Amino acid sequence: MAIKFPSTHKAISKVDYFYDQPGVAPGVLSLSADAEPATLSVIDYDSETVDCHHITDPDEAERYLQNKSVSWLDLSGLGNQSTWQSLSKTFNLHPLLVEDVVNVPQRPKIEHYAGQLLIVSWMVTPDKTATGFRKEQVSLILGKSYLLTVQEEPDHDCFQGVRDRIAHGRGSLRHQGADYLAYCLLDAIIDGFFPVLEHYGELIDELEDEVVSQPTKKTLEKIYRIRRDLLTLRRSIWPQRDAINQLIRDGSEFISDEVKIYLRDCYDHTVQVMDMVETYRELATGLMDVYLSSVGNKMNEIMKLLTVVSSIFIPLTFIAGVYGMNFNVEKSPLNMPELSWYWGYPACLTLMGIVGGSLAFFFWRQGWFSSSQINKS
Amino acid sequence: MAIKFPSTHKAISKVDYFYDQPGVAPGVLSLSADAEPATLSVIDYDSETVDCHHITDPDEAERYLQNKSVSWLDLSGLGNQSTWQSLSKTFNLHPLLVEDVVNVPQRPKIEHYAGQLLIVSWMVTPDKTATGFRKEQVSLILGKSYLLTVQEEPDHDCFQGVRDRIAHGRGSLRHQGADYLAYCLLDAIIDGFFPVLEHYGELIDELEDEVVSQPTKKTLEKIYRIRRDLLTLRRSIWPQRDAINQLIRDGSEFISDEVKIYLRDCYDHTVQVMDMVETYRELATGLMDVYLSSVGNKMNEIMKLLTVVSSIFIPLTFIAGVYGMNFNVEKSPLNMPELSWYWGYPACLTLMGIVGGSLAFFFWRQGWFSSSQINKS
Amino acid sequence: MAIKFPSTHKAISKVDYFYDQPGVAPGVLSLSADAEPATLSVIDYDSETVDCHHITDPDEAERYLQNKSVSWLDLSGLGNQSTWQSLSKTFNLHPLLVEDVVNVPQRPKIEHYAGQLLIVSWMVTPDKTATGFRKEQVSLILGKSYLLTVQEEPDHDCFQGVRDRIAHGRGSLRHQGADYLAYCLLDAIIDGFFPVLEHYGELIDELEDEVVSQPTKKTLEKIYRIRRDLLTLRRSIWPQRDAINQLIRDGSEFISDEVKIYLRDCYDHTVQVMDMVETYRELATGLMDVYLSSVGNKMNEIMKLLTVVSSIFIPLTFIAGVYGMNFNVEKSPLNMPELSWYWGYPACLTLMGIVGGSLAFFFWRQGWFSSSQINKS
Amino acid sequence: MAIKFPSTHKAISKVDYFYDQPGVAPGVLSLSADAEPATLSVIDYDSETVDCHHITDPDEAERYLQNKSVSWLDLSGLGNQSTWQSLSKTFNLHPLLVEDVVNVPQRPKIEHYAGQLLIVSWMVTPDKTATGFRKEQVSLILGKSYLLTVQEEPDHDCFQGVRDRIAHGRGSLRHQGADYLAYCLLDAIIDGFFPVLEHYGELIDELEDEVVSQPTKKTLEKIYRIRRDLLTLRRSIWPQRDAINQLIRDGSEFISDEVKIYLRDCYDHTVQVMDMVETYRELATGLMDVYLSSVGNKMNEIMKLLTVVSSIFIPLTFIAGVYGMNFNVEKSPLNMPELSWYWGYPACLTLMGIVGGSLAFFFWRQGWFSSSQINKS
Amino acid sequence: MAIKFPSTHKAISKVDYFYDQPGVAPGVLSLSADAEPATLSVIDYDSETVDCHHITDPDEAERYLQNKSVSWLDLSGLGNQSTWQSLSKTFNLHPLLVEDVVNVPQRPKIEHYAGQLLIVSWMVTPDKTATGFRKEQVSLILGKSYLLTVQEEPDHDCFQGVRDRIAHGRGSLRHQGADYLAYCLLDAIIDGFFPVLEHYGELIDELEDEVVSQPTKKTLEKIYRIRRDLLTLRRSIWPQRDAINQLIRDGSEFISDEVKIYLRDCYDHTVQVMDMVETYRELATGLMDVYLSSVGNKMNEIMKLLTVVSSIFIPLTFIAGVYGMNFNVEKSPLNMPELSWYWGYPACLTLMGIVGGSLAFFFWRQGWFSSSQINKS
Repeated sequence: MAIKFPSTHKAISKVDYFYDQPGVAPGVLSLSADAEPATLSVIDYDSETVDCHHITDPDEAERYLQNKSVSWLDLSGLGNQSTWQSLSKTFNLHPLLVEDVVNVPQRPKIEHYAGQLLIVSWMVTPDKTATGFRKEQVSLILGKSYLLTVQEEPDHDCFQGVRDRIAHGRGSLRHQGADYLAYCLLDAIIDGFFPVLEHYGELIDELEDEVVSQPTKKTLEKIYRIRRDLLTLRRSIWPQRDAINQLIRDGSEFISDEVKIYLRDCYDHTVQVMDMVETYRELATGLMDVYLSSVGNKMNEIMKLLTVVSSIFIPLTFIAGVYGMNFNVEKSPLNMPELSWYWGYPACLTLMGIVGGSLAFFFWRQGWFSSSQINKS
Repeated sequence: MAIKFPSTHKAISKVDYFYDQPGVAPGVLSLSADAEPATLSVIDYDSETVDCHHITDPDEAERYLQNKSVSWLDLSGLGNQSTWQSLSKTFNLHPLLVEDVVNVPQRPKIEHYAGQLLIVSWMVTPDKTATGFRKEQVSLILGKSYLLTVQEEPDHDCFQGVRDRIAHGRGSLRHQGADYLAYCLLDAIIDGFFPVLEHYGELIDELEDEVVSQPTKKTLEKIYRIRRDLLTLRRSIWPQRDAINQLIRDGSEFISDEVKIYLRDCYDHTVQVMDMVETYRELATGLMDVYLSSVGNKMNEIMKLLTVVSSIFIPLTFIAGVYGMNFNVEKSPLNMPELSWYWGYPACLTLMGIVGGSLAFFFWRQGWFSSSQINKS
Repeated sequence: MAIKFPSTHKAISKVDYFYDQPGVAPGVLSLSADAEPATLSVIDYDSETVDCHHITDPDEAERYLQNKSVSWLDLSGLGNQSTWQSLSKTFNLHPLLVEDVVNVPQRPKIEHYAGQLLIVSWMVTPDKTATGFRKEQVSLILGKSYLLTVQEEPDHDCFQGVRDRIAHGRGSLRHQGADYLAYCLLDAIIDGFFPVLEHYGELIDELEDEVVSQPTKKTLEKIYRIRRDLLTLRRSIWPQRDAINQLIRDGSEFISDEVKIYLRDCYDHTVQVMDMVETYRELATGLMDVYLSSVGNKMNEIMKLLTVVSSIFIPLTFIAGVYGMNFNVEKSPLNMPELSWYWGYPACLTLMGIVGGSLAFFFWRQGWFSSSQINKS
Repeated sequence: MAIKFPSTHKAISKVDYFYDQPGVAPGVLSLSADAEPATLSVIDYDSETVDCHHITDPDEAERYLQNKSVSWLDLSGLGNQSTWQSLSKTFNLHPLLVEDVVNVPQRPKIEHYAGQLLIVSWMVTPDKTATGFRKEQVSLILGKSYLLTVQEEPDHDCFQGVRDRIAHGRGSLRHQGADYLAYCLLDAIIDGFFPVLEHYGELIDELEDEVVSQPTKKTLEKIYRIRRDLLTLRRSIWPQRDAINQLIRDGSEFISDEVKIYLRDCYDHTVQVMDMVETYRELATGLMDVYLSSVGNKMNEIMKLLTVVSSIFIPLTFIAGVYGMNFNVEKSPLNMPELSWYWGYPACLTLMGIVGGSLAFFFWRQGWFSSSQINKS
Repeated sequence: MAIKFPSTHKAISKVDYFYDQPGVAPGVLSLSADAEPATLSVIDYDSETVDCHHITDPDEAERYLQNKSVSWLDLSGLGNQSTWQSLSKTFNLHPLLVEDVVNVPQRPKIEHYAGQLLIVSWMVTPDKTATGFRKEQVSLILGKSYLLTVQEEPDHDCFQGVRDRIAHGRGSLRHQGADYLAYCLLDAIIDGFFPVLEHYGELIDELEDEVVSQPTKKTLEKIYRIRRDLLTLRRSIWPQRDAINQLIRDGSEFISDEVKIYLRDCYDHTVQVMDMVETYRELATGLMDVYLSSVGNKMNEIMKLLTVVSSIFIPLTFIAGVYGMNFNVEKSPLNMPELSWYWGYPACLTLMGIVGGSLAFFFWRQGWFSSSQINKS
C-alpha cells in the first residue's frame, strides 16, 4: 500500500514553472480577483536609528524612498492587482519585472532593469508537519537606497536572523547600504538549504541499515521519494549558482565592489550546497541498487527454506508411500515381505532417519541453516 | 497483451526527419502531385485598423506587401507546387528556404537569407483523442513588414490568443512591427509545451502510486511510453533553445533591439521547458527502477505463500504417510504398535497439530503473515 | 540457441580501424600483391557537354586534368600498387594522403594537402541479404578542376542520383565546379544514413510490442544487436559531423563560398542523423530495461501457477493422507471413528471441497486467475 | 544484520560542510565557549639554523615574524576565541579568512587576501581502528616569510617527513622560502591520499573473488561502503585539483616562479589521485552489477536443486499412491490385479527405478549435477 | 569457483601510480639498493652509416653526444643509483625529470626542460602466457641530436620494426633527425595498442554467443575482467592523446615542423584507439545487461519445468490419496462405494489420465514444452 503523502508535499515535489496560456500577452499578472491586499513591513535604518512599520497602503512606501537611510520593504504574499499598480508607480517598475515577481514560480535568475536589479531566488524551509520541505519564490528588487522583497508565502521565512542583526546593530550591517542587505538575505536563503539537506543526509543514513537488513516496500518508496526531493533541490540550487556567478562576473551599478567580495562567499556556499545535493543523489542511487540486490537475497533465503523442507520430506513421504502400497503379501513371498518382518517398522523408521539426516547434514554443510541467512532475513 | 496505440500516436513518437533519396538535387520539394492548394489567411493591421481575409490565390498576397501596415499571412497546410511557385516569386524566396519549409520535418533552426529571416519551429498541442500530443512544424518567414507563417497541419494551432489580441487591440501588439508579432507567435509555441508537460507530470504522479502497489504489465508499458514521449519533447525543445539563443546573440536586421528583450523572456521559457522535461525524464527513469524492484517484491510474496503452505503441509503429509504404512502389527509387537493404542489417533492428531502450529508460529514470528505483505500485494 | 549472423554482418559490426604492425614506416600501402587493377570511370562535363569513359590505365587520367571542364574520376575498389604509382605521379599525391585512402578504414576526417583537399568519409548502404547494413570508406580527393573518388567496395554506392543529374543536366550541377560535385556526393553519403536508420526505427517499433507481450531469448538478442549496430552508426556519423564543421569553419582554397552555404545544409543533415541515432539508442536502452522487467513478470506468472496448484492440492492430499492411516478402529473408539460413520466419506469429500474451494476463492480474489496474467503470458 | 560501523566512521563518510544558522552575520566563529587553547608549535629555520619551540601564548608568535628566517607555526586543533583574537591581531588576518579556517569543514579553495594567501585543503589519513579513513581540514596561511598552518584535529598528520627534512637539512628545503615549505606540505597532503586509495584497491581486489564465489549480504554492504567512501574521496580531491590549478594559472605574490614548477608536479599528483578514484569507482560499480548477477545465479542453483528433488520424487510418490488405493480386488478382476501378482512388488519397484533413473539421467545430461553448479555455490 | 588469474595479471590490472611516502623530498629515486646496472644499447646512425653497440658503463654514452649523427640510447630496465648518477651528469638531466623516469608508473605526459623534452608514455604488449596484456612505462628523453629511451621492463618492446628500418635504411628514417626517431617510436607504441584491442574485440565476439546460449559464472567473470582491462587501456591511452595534442599545439624547440605533420598522423591513431576502447566498453556494458536478462530467462525455464512436473503430479497424487482412505465400506453404502465397483480401478486410472493429459495439453499449448525453452537452456 502506497503511503499517502499530505497534499502539501505533492505541491512542492515538482519543478513546475508558471506558464501563461499560449498566446496571452506578456506582462499580464496571474492574481485572482479577490486576492487580499498584502501588508508591507518596512524597516528603515541607518547606523544611528532603526524604524519599523507595517503599512497597508503601498502608496505610503514612497515616503521611504526619499530619505537617505536604507529602506527594506518586505511584502509577504503576492498582494493583489491594486498593490502592484501602486508599487509599479511608486518604484517605477518595468512590466516584465512585475510579471516575473508575481507569476510564480519563475526560474531563479538575475535581470538588469533601468532603475532596479531583480534577483529571483528560491527559498526552502524544513516542513515540520510533512516530512519534506517547503519551497517558495523570494524576489529581491534592489534600488539605490532601498530593497523591496516579495515572498510568495506569508508565513515562514529565514530572515529573522537578519532582522535581529538590524534591530540590535550587531555586525556591520547597519553601516552598509541596501546592496549589503540584499547579500545578507541571499546568504540567509542559501544557508537555509543546509538544514533541509542535513535532514536528507539523516534519512539516507537510516536507510543504509534498513535497506540491507529489512527491505520492505516502504523502504523502496522512501528511496524514490528522497531521489525525487533531491532532484527538486538540485533544480532549485543550480540556477541560483549561475545567477550569483553572473552577478559577480558582470557586476551591476547597484552592487558595490565590497559587497561583491561577500557575494563570492555566498557563491562558495551555493557550490557547497550543490556538492551535498550531488553526493546525496549518488548515495540514493547506490541505495536503489542495494535494495534491488537485497530483494534478490531475500528471495534466495525464502527459496532455500522451501528447498530444505521439500527436499527432506518429499523423499521421506515417498518411502512411507511405498510401504502404504497394498500388494498382497499372501499371494507371493516377493510382495513386500518387509511388512511382516519382526524389525520391519523400526528398520523403516531408521531408513527414513538416515535419509532425512543425510539431507539435513548436506544442507547444513552448505551453510543453508546459518542463522544470518534464514532467521535474520 | 500490448496496448495498441492509435496510429496517430506512432506518427509523433519518433524524431524522424525528412530526408531526400540520396543523390536528389537540393531544392526539390516533396509535395504529392495532387496536393490541394492551401488557403492563406491574411491579417493586415496597424495601430488603427485590422483587416482579415482569406485568399486562395497566393498571387493576391503581393498587394499586402506594398502597404505600410503589418501583414501576417498564415498558410495552413503545406500547399502544392503552384502555391510555392507563386509565393517564391511574390516574396522572392531562396530555394533552400522553401525546401526547409516544405520538406517537413526539419530540425528547429534559424537561417538568415537575403530578404528574410527563417525560423523553423516545432509546435506541440495536446492530443484529445489519443493520450499523447501532436507535433507539427511551424515555419516563420519574417520580412521587413510582413510575417509569413506555414503550418504543417491545417487544424489545431495555439495562435488563437494572438489573433484575439490583434482583433481587440489588447496590449502593445498593434503598435509594434512584424518582429514583435513573430515573437508573440514563438512565445505562444513555447508556452504550448507547458500544458503538454503538465499532462506527463500528472501521469507520473499517478504512476508513483501504481508502481509500488499494483505493478502490472500495463504499468511497464506506460512508463516506457512516457520515457519515449519525453525523449521526443526533449529533442523538440533543445534545438529551439539553441535557435532562440543564437537569434539573441547574433541579432538580425529584421529584429529590433526592443523585441530582443522580449526574446530573452522567451528564451527563459524554453529553459524552463527543458528543466521540466529533464526532471520528468529522471523521475520516469526512477520509476523504472522502482518497477523492477516491485516485481521482485511481488515474487517474494508469491514465494512466501508457496513456502508457508508447502513447509507446513509437507511434513504433516509425511506423518500421515507413516501411519498409512501396512506393516503387519500381528507379526511383531514392534510393528507400529501405536496403531492399536487407545489414544493412538488423538495422539497422532496432536502431534500433527504441534508440528503444524510450530511451523505456523515460526512463519508468523518472521512476519510472513503480515497483511501488508501477502494480502495487499 | 544463438542466431548465427551471416559472416558479412560481423565484418561491419565493429569500429575496427586499419593499423600497421608496430614499427612499420608511414606511407606503406596494405594492398595484397595480387590485387586486381581497378577501373577508373571518368565523367567529364561542363555546362555544354558530358563525356563518360571507363579507363583501365590510370596514366590516361592525365588527359582530363588539362581541360577546363570538371572531371570526376571514380575508382571502384582500392586498386593495386601500380594503380597508385600512376595516380600518385599524375595527381602529385602526398604519400600520407595515399596511405589514408588505401589503408582502410580510417576515421572520417578532412586533411589539407598542398595540391588537394582530402575528405575521408564513411558510406552506409542497406544490406539486402543480411539484416544490417554495409559500411565502406569513400575518399574524396578534391583538386582545382577535378574530383578523384575512391570507394572501398566496387559494388553498391549511392551516387547514381548524382550521375543522373549530370547526365540529364538537372539542377545547377553542370554549371558548377568540382567543389559543388564534392558537396553533392557528400550530401548523398549523408542522406544514405536515413534509410538505414529508418530500418532500425521500424525494428524498434516491432520490438516495443514483442518485448512486453512475448519476450524470448531472440528478443534479447535483437535488442543487443540493434544497440551494437547503432553504436557503429554513431561512431560513423560523429567524426563526419566534425569534419564537415571544420571544413565550413576553416574553409579551403578548393571550396568556394557559395558551396560553403550548401555544406551548411549538409551539416544540418549530419546533425539530424545524429539526433536520430541518439534517440534510437535511448529507446533501445529503454527496451532492455523493459525486457528485464518482463522476464521478472513472466517468472511471477509461472510462480503464481505453481503456487495456486500446490497450495490447493497439498492440503487436500494431507487430508486424504490422514484418512489413509491404519489406526486400528477396533482397539479404541477414539481411533478414527469417522471411518465407520454413515456419512463419513461424503463428509470428508465435502471438507475437501470446502478447503479447496476456499483457497481457490482466495486466489481468485487476489486476481491470480485473470487471463491476462496467466494465459496470455 | 547490518554491520555497525564505529561512530567515527559515520563522521567522515559524508561531505557535510559547515553552515551558519540562516541569517547569522558573516565572520562569526563557531567555537564552543570552553574550547581549550591550542598549542602553537613553531619551527624557525634558515639554511644555517633550526629552532623548535612550543608556545602557548599566541602573542609570542609575533617575535618570529620579525626575523628573516622562515617561520612555520603549526596550530594543532582549532583553538578558542582568545587564540584567534591574538592571531588576528598579530598576523593582521581578515575576518572572512578566520571564518574559513575555524568554521570547518569548508570546501578546499584558494583565497587571496591583502597580506596572506589562504589555502584550504583536506587531509586524509588511514584510520587504523576503523576500516576507513579520517578526513580533516588543514588551512595554510602563507605570508612573506612565515607559514601558519591550522589542523582541525590535534593528532595525526602526514607532515613528519617534512619536519625531518627540516631537522636534518635534507634536500633543498632549508635553502628555500616559506612558499616552498607550503608546497612541501601540500605535496605531503596529496601524497597522503595514495595509501588510503591503495587500501580501497586491495578491498576491491578481495571483493572480486568474493562477489562471484560467495556473495553474501556482507559483500553487498562492503561494496556499498566502498562506493560511499570513494565518493567522499572524490569530493575531497576534486576541488583541491581546481585550487592548485588556479594557483599555478593565476599566480600569487607569495609564490615564486621556481615553486610554481614544483606545484605543477603537485598538480600532476592530484590528477593521478583522481584517476585512481575514478577507476576504483567504475570497478565498484561493475562489482555491484556482478553481485546482482551472482544473486540471480545462486537462485538458479537453489531452484535447480529443488526442481531435481521434486521432479524425481513427486512422480514416484504418485506411483506409490496408486498402489496404496483400496480398490476391492475381490469385487472385480479389473480392480488392481497387479497387487496379487507374484512379481507385483518387484515389478513396481523396477518401474519406480526406471522412472526415477530416467529423470535423474535427464537432469544429469542437462548438466544440473555438475559440482561447480550445485555444491560449490 | 573464481578463476585464479596468474599473479602477473593482477599487476597490470589497475592504474596504480607511483607515490612517495607523504613528506619525502621531491627528486628521491625509488630504486632498490641492489638493483643491477642496466645495459645501454646504442644505435648511432646517419644517412651513410649505422653503428650498434652495447655499453655497460653509462659514462661511455658521452662519446655519442659529441658527433653529429643521431644517437639512440636505449636503457632496458630502470638501472640503479649509479646508472642515474652517470646519466644525470652526462646528459645534464633535471632531478624532476629523472624522478618521473625512474619512479614508475607516472601518468603519460609531456614535460619541457631546459636541455631536453621528456615524453612519458605507456606501452602495452599482448601477454602470451596470461590472457591479458603487459603494460610498462617508456620514457623518451629527446635532445638536439640524441634520444634516450628508458623502458621499465627489459624484455618485450615493439621497437623491432624501427630497429630494422634503421638497419636496412628503409624509408626516410636514416635521413631525419632524432625528433623523427622519437615520432617513429611513439607511433610504434600507439600502434601496439591495436593488436591488444583486437584481442578484446574477439573476446567480446565470443561472449556474444555464450552470454545468450550458455551463461555461466565464468561468463560473468570474463565480462567483468574485460571491462576492467578496457578501463585500464582507456586510462592508458587518454593522457597520451592529451600529451601528443599538447606537443602539436605548443610545439617544442626539439621538434621540427615537418615531424609535427607526422605527429598529427600519430594523434589520429590515438583517437582511433580511444574510439575502439569506448566502443568495446559500451559493448561490454551491453553484454552485462544481456547476462542479467539471460540469468532471469534461465530461471524461468527451471521454474517452468518444476511447475509442469508439480502441477501434473500433485493433483494425481491427491486422487490416489483419496482412494487410499480407509473409510469402512461395510458400515455405509455411501463410504467409497466406487472401491467395490467392477470398473472402479480402470475408471480411476482413466480419470487420472484425463486430468494429467489435460494439464499436459494446457502446458503444451502454452509453449512450455518447446525444446528451445527447456532442453536447450
